[in-house]
Amino acid sequence: MSEENCIFCKLVKGEIPSKIVFENDDNLAFLDINPVSEGHTIVIPKKHFTTLEKTPEEEVIKLFLTVKEVAEMIYTKLDIDGYNVIQNNYKAAGQHVDHSHVHIIPRSNRDMKIRLTIPRNSASNEELEKVLKKIKS
Amino acid sequence: MSEENCIFCKLVKGEIPSKIVFENDDNLAFLDINPVSEGHTIVIPKKHFTTLEKTPEEEVIKLFLTVKEVAEMIYTKLDIDGYNVIQNNYKAAGQHVDHSHVHIIPRSNRDMKIRLTIPRNSASNEELEKVLKKIKS
Repeated sequence: MSEENCIFCKLVKGEIPSKIVFENDDNLAFLDINPVSEGHTIVIPKKHFTTLEKTPEEEVIKLFLTVKEVAEMIYTKLDIDGYNVIQNNYKAAGQHVDHSHVHIIPRSNRDMKIRLTIPRNSASNEELEKVLKKIKS
Repeated sequence: MSEENCIFCKLVKGEIPSKIVFENDDNLAFLDINPVSEGHTIVIPKKHFTTLEKTPEEEVIKLFLTVKEVAEMIYTKLDIDGYNVIQNNYKAAGQHVDHSHVHIIPRSNRDMKIRLTIPRNSASNEELEKVLKKIKS
């Protein structure tokens, strides 16, 4: 299951070189070549799936067990103070490669130029009830 | 396994009210009361673990299967174009509640005020090799 023009499928097949952090039968973890911070790693299923909700359960299980394992490597081996795990689904959410992938972004108390915080609103009870009804409909 | 002063443990025990999106034996999903966007949901293990790399494998599996299920509810029921799955580990990464949790943030092509994109650098081969060596050491 691979897509001919998918850059991540090409990485899996070794057609494009990558800096491999971790690999097993089902997953590949490699360094992002445009890192947000040093050690920024991408973890993917070797098979081509587009988004999280379209990825089969057994693949979700394997993917996030690998994410946990790689996060532990990164957190223990690099001199960092934390890390973000981020998965973007669809273009509107900033997904640029159409092959489901998880970012692990090392963070330091010193890297205050990185701001993942975004504007938040205080929602009224009525607003929360309204959207809750939609989701559970 | 709960912590006396943990706000998410209190939600699990029902000591603090919440807008529950989904619940099963192991996980709870509820609306964030300070949403980044309408439908912003938090998914947690009912047991208290602090960060991803400290969460046992069987709990990681259950948590992300629930995240997938709730993401599908949100993506199909709300009029949105995508969603971010974000998990912050440690204060340096923006973790504010010391109970491991996953954000699901609905995104729309119209919500351009939300910017999750962050400054990226192009890393040289030498820089990538250097950090790869550290992680795999």
